[in-house]
Amino acid sequence: MNAAVYFDHNATTTPDARVLDAMLPFLHQPQGNPTSRHSFGRQARAAVENAREQVAAAVGAHPSQVVFTGGGTEADNLAICGIANAMSPSIIAVSAIEHPAVFRPAQALFGRGWQAARIPVTGAGQVSADALCDLMRQKVGLVSVMAANNETGVLQDIAALAEIARDHGALMHTDAVQALGKIPLDFDALGVNAMSLSSHKICGPQGAGALILDKRVDIQPLLRGGGQEKGLRSGTENVAAIVGFGLACEYATRELTEHTRRMTQLRDRLEAGLQRLGATIFGGEVARLPNTSFFAFPNLEGETLVMAMDKQGYAIASGSACSSDSTEPSHVLLAMGVAPELARGAARVSLGAGNDEAQVAGFLRALENERNRWQQLTAMAV
Amino acid sequence: MNAAVYFDHNATTTPDARVLDAMLPFLHQPQGNPTSRHSFGRQARAAVENAREQVAAAVGAHPSQVVFTGGGTEADNLAICGIANAMSPSIIAVSAIEHPAVFRPAQALFGRGWQAARIPVTGAGQVSADALCDLMRQKVGLVSVMAANNETGVLQDIAALAEIARDHGALMHTDAVQALGKIPLDFDALGVNAMSLSSHKICGPQGAGALILDKRVDIQPLLRGGGQEKGLRSGTENVAAIVGFGLACEYATRELTEHTRRMTQLRDRLEAGLQRLGATIFGGEVARLPNTSFFAFPNLEGETLVMAMDKQGYAIASGSACSSDSTEPSHVLLAMGVAPELARGAARVSLGAGNDEAQVAGFLRALENERNRWQQLTAMAV
Repeated sequence: MNAAVYFDHNATTTPDARVLDAMLPFLHQPQGNPTSRHSFGRQARAAVENAREQVAAAVGAHPSQVVFTGGGTEADNLAICGIANAMSPSIIAVSAIEHPAVFRPAQALFGRGWQAARIPVTGAGQVSADALCDLMRQKVGLVSVMAANNETGVLQDIAALAEIARDHGALMHTDAVQALGKIPLDFDALGVNAMSLSSHKICGPQGAGALILDKRVDIQPLLRGGGQEKGLRSGTENVAAIVGFGLACEYATRELTEHTRRMTQLRDRLEAGLQRLGATIFGGEVARLPNTSFFAFPNLEGETLVMAMDKQGYAIASGSACSSDSTEPSHVLLAMGVAPELARGAARVSLGAGNDEAQVAGFLRALENERNRWQQLTAMAV
Repeated sequence: MNAAVYFDHNATTTPDARVLDAMLPFLHQPQGNPTSRHSFGRQARAAVENAREQVAAAVGAHPSQVVFTGGGTEADNLAICGIANAMSPSIIAVSAIEHPAVFRPAQALFGRGWQAARIPVTGAGQVSADALCDLMRQKVGLVSVMAANNETGVLQDIAALAEIARDHGALMHTDAVQALGKIPLDFDALGVNAMSLSSHKICGPQGAGALILDKRVDIQPLLRGGGQEKGLRSGTENVAAIVGFGLACEYATRELTEHTRRMTQLRDRLEAGLQRLGATIFGGEVARLPNTSFFAFPNLEGETLVMAMDKQGYAIASGSACSSDSTEPSHVLLAMGVAPELARGAARVSLGAGNDEAQVAGFLRALENERNRWQQLTAMAV
């Protein structure tokens, strides 16, 4: 068992004990394929359909709008490629701060006659509605903007952006993977046509996600085969993971107010300490997820900071897990106009259910010690 | 807990208790994203890489040839679409008895300039090497033939078919989802360029699969994003499922001889009884998986039989789970030239680790009672 403090909940989370308890019968008792018609199959089907209702309820959608996938990346790819492949090629507009699970499939559409346009963000990390309006003067068929950024936690005004898309006859997708369980989400109120969700970011298991889909939207499947999920996502359903995802959605919704209160309190305490130590908080001046702090110290590599804190027993990130292999500064920060030198210093703390004040206080002490050590090293180097 | 006897192991299996034990730490202890660089992430990465070695070892491949996917269907789609999308369009030749996870993506290539050709099978369900040779006179770029059929269990001579493909400059994929754990598999000896595997058919968990890939083959990803699996399959790895898959592969290989002996014994006993009751065994005259019996009684719908046996406490299938929603007779049997009336009667028993002689004997007694009841009903109707 790893005794370190886990501060990287935007990368992945551990399943809630109650969620795991609900999954276990589907892992250790004889189980059937949900497509099978015998009693084992019908039990598995009932469990999947119950989870579909739980996921739908968490985002104000109808169960028939839920397409289960193997995760958030698959949901994003299904939305971008699946919708685009069912349309005549035009322009796909994605924000400059999207997760690679959105911007890479958008780029890949280029080979199929599409053009990709970037919607710029403000210095605070907010997608510019004016810039989207400008873009819409061209022939944009599909718009994708994330509900909350995975690195900064900055929230986007999806309802306003979706209205602009709709007014110009474009379809709108939102990647709500980081938003789910951290802020209220209502599919209808947002006015989007498709919304991606992921289980393992909300104390559900890895291996499950969903695309919430307006049924009037034409879409082509990415995975073809046995015709599961009304033909939109073939492949045997991962029953245990789907059961866990459904229940995690239920808890996330039911406990959202209390969770938000706790996370905000911890995060504010953390950020007060970070600022006292001289850190810049990216997007700190606008509405953000309650659990996420993306910050940097001048003249210190984010990667170095992650390694130093790892040795001290604190697991933080230098950016999104999905780009940890890269040594390039965060594309999110560059899009916000942050200088590359400062962007290279970026580190992220993303809090979660298991964290408490003592851990935050311990982290700040460890960070202060490290900072003092670098200042001494820097002074000696001068 | 369902007290019925489970005879549908080709549809899905329950994880081996030892496999589940190995997965549990990755579900209930704090865990990291394998892409993260902190200690939690490195632990998850090590677990994934250990599983990669186990999967590779089970099929005589190198760990670097293993691309983890969310399941067998995704592996098939990645192979078919991924390889085809990296080539100039020509002809894709797939056998007439492929799983929909192969033939549906092959059909979908049509929209991208490809043509699909069907390789016929013999009356016994074997893919015809002569027919493939004939087809190869045209410009075939990709061939896909399953190692063992999911419905009949009939084995294909993949090494011979791959040699034909290679001799004509085509690439060869095999869907080995049903073969894994039931017959020996050696990636190099088969001479294929890509091979699909699935975890939940071998007493591993749902939600994991792999494409074993010859690294000289150009391939495009289906799922784009964070660049996991060397860019070939983006999306956070399902660590617990991958750990379970790896261990299930290890057990399947280690216990293959004994498992085969037990399954063959049970299957032969079952089929002796079925034949005594007047059933036709499809593919019964050729080499098959040791656990699979696909059979029919004249004048009896397979669906009716499945429902009747379900009431009696035996879970069998009327065909593959992935086409259970269809009322069409099995495309596999039609390709073998079986008359549609008899094909509609088809039912499948697929045995697994938990089955024993008493269950087979009980099933045969229940089946005999049902058969007698139908005969009386038929006699009354006449």
